[in-house]
Amino acid sequence: MIWYKDNNSDIVVSTRIRLARNLDNTPFPNALGDKKAVSEKIKDAILNGNSTLAKDFDFIDLDSMSAPEKRAMAEEHLISPDMCSGTGKSVLINKDKTMSIMLMEEDHIRLQIIKSGCCPDEAYSLASKVDDVIEERLTYAFDPDFGYLTACPTNTGTGMRASLMLHLPALTMSDNISKLISSAGSLGIEVRGLYGEGTKAYGSLYQISNRATLGISEEQTIEKLKNIVGQMVEMEKKARAALEKDNADALRDRLFRSYGTLKYAVVMSSAEAKSLLSDVMLGQNMGILPKDGKIDPLECMILSEPALICGGKELPSAERDKKRAEFIRKNI
Amino acid sequence: MIWYKDNNSDIVVSTRIRLARNLDNTPFPNALGDKKAVSEKIKDAILNGNSTLAKDFDFIDLDSMSAPEKRAMAEEHLISPDMCSGTGKSVLINKDKTMSIMLMEEDHIRLQIIKSGCCPDEAYSLASKVDDVIEERLTYAFDPDFGYLTACPTNTGTGMRASLMLHLPALTMSDNISKLISSAGSLGIEVRGLYGEGTKAYGSLYQISNRATLGISEEQTIEKLKNIVGQMVEMEKKARAALEKDNADALRDRLFRSYGTLKYAVVMSSAEAKSLLSDVMLGQNMGILPKDGKIDPLECMILSEPALICGGKELPSAERDKKRAEFIRKNI
Repeated sequence: MIWYKDNNSDIVVSTRIRLARNLDNTPFPNALGDKKAVSEKIKDAILNGNSTLAKDFDFIDLDSMSAPEKRAMAEEHLISPDMCSGTGKSVLINKDKTMSIMLMEEDHIRLQIIKSGCCPDEAYSLASKVDDVIEERLTYAFDPDFGYLTACPTNTGTGMRASLMLHLPALTMSDNISKLISSAGSLGIEVRGLYGEGTKAYGSLYQISNRATLGISEEQTIEKLKNIVGQMVEMEKKARAALEKDNADALRDRLFRSYGTLKYAVVMSSAEAKSLLSDVMLGQNMGILPKDGKIDPLECMILSEPALICGGKELPSAERDKKRAEFIRKNI
Repeated sequence: MIWYKDNNSDIVVSTRIRLARNLDNTPFPNALGDKKAVSEKIKDAILNGNSTLAKDFDFIDLDSMSAPEKRAMAEEHLISPDMCSGTGKSVLINKDKTMSIMLMEEDHIRLQIIKSGCCPDEAYSLASKVDDVIEERLTYAFDPDFGYLTACPTNTGTGMRASLMLHLPALTMSDNISKLISSAGSLGIEVRGLYGEGTKAYGSLYQISNRATLGISEEQTIEKLKNIVGQMVEMEKKARAALEKDNADALRDRLFRSYGTLKYAVVMSSAEAKSLLSDVMLGQNMGILPKDGKIDPLECMILSEPALICGGKELPSAERDKKRAEFIRKNI
């Protein structure tokens, strides 16, 4: 099941493991002449391997998709935003959309596992299995000293980015989030917005991920991340309890108003939708708001993203904002 | 029926006629020693007169009422804000609360007729009848040259203030209201907020009244007022049509959001309530919002005023704002 559907998790919304891999003796994609040939080779290794796992994948040539269709996939976090531009890129996605193998992103292979809730060990173990399946038939660019070689040196080593998406509305409201971001940074942990590097944390959703890939094992990386995320979860719980204790009326007022606005607005921007839906997530998780919508606020948030709400078509923003409001009104 | 209940009028919400009268050979209230004795004399003249009309009145000694109880009456427009302070004041109010006779305000007698909708002729004729009933048994301070003498020279002459309350949300939104106020001013017509002189026009409700009381008859005053108000009504209708034509989505969005906020908010100030309820009035009158509340938005607006919402008790403002939100949520 795709990570955002029937996602009943509270503070840790989802888990993502990403492995960067490149083929031996082959230029990195930005210097590669025939991307299609290399992609075919990798595709073949996966789809025609012995593993039953491999049988599960669909191959999508991104050159055959329109720009809004690609953006819609990025909004679902099935491909990275970088995959939306340029040519010669493709992706293998499994049936339940928990695994995607991007070809010709920055590296030849970007293998991603994405699941709801907090499950970095499980996700890493799955990523490892798929990684092994590929490695059975292909040779990776690997250096005994450095580890996996990657286009960007910040990925060299494990090539792994482990990332947990956290919903931290109470820490955001109480303005403690910036302190938390900088102290996590000093521990080698990156805190970023919903769509990764350089994106804003709309909807109080933050991606917490490791920075180092060199001189640390995958297991140690995940342990460290779990440790720090565990502390963040405790801080968020305390911040929620404090809001409930010191500002119960103001909190209820804010959450119910957001709920009411979502149920009645006729026009709504993506940023506003995220912010109000985040309030509804918080309200439902704190037992303040009823869980009576057709779909959960997280799914509403993803499905009302600009490209997804337009069904992969290009629409003027005024029309998009009306479609979004209508979709949310009917489903929240 | 009190003017704001089941008030189905659209742009002209209510009509008020006020006559200022003083007894002959008696100092004005601000210089009067024994206010009670003069009040008794007037009360007796009204309650023991021959008219059946007179039998309808209840006498209320304002000295026996608490400050919040007096403010609640002022919020219902049954007494003027000035009646809330000072001592020795009283009021006679009829059963359906369309007539009130204030004693010892600025003048000995302030006779007020207040009704829903646009009915200045009817209201003036009723005021005249009550005025005649009183004059049968008392002698007014009247000068053949100046007319009725009053404490403040701005009322001398007819002693009449005819006032229509208008709901002008479209002219307010389109910012044409200030032009309208100044051009009405140059024609001797005063445009003021909901509670008269110096009050803000919360809820896009404006009181339009005559300025002159000298050198013009009551009938001429009312004719002039009706004429100018008729033009304002046309302007408001045009402004509404323009909003519908040029900004249909933005208009619907605003009105539905206001409706949703009123249905869900947990804490609400009086100013915000008026502004949102004004949107609901507009939306219902334009056929955009359903008329499905337990009570009309105008009644909601009046009954959620600070003193009325607290049931004539003194409550901290945080509690008042919760009570207001709850009352509106249940009734709108």
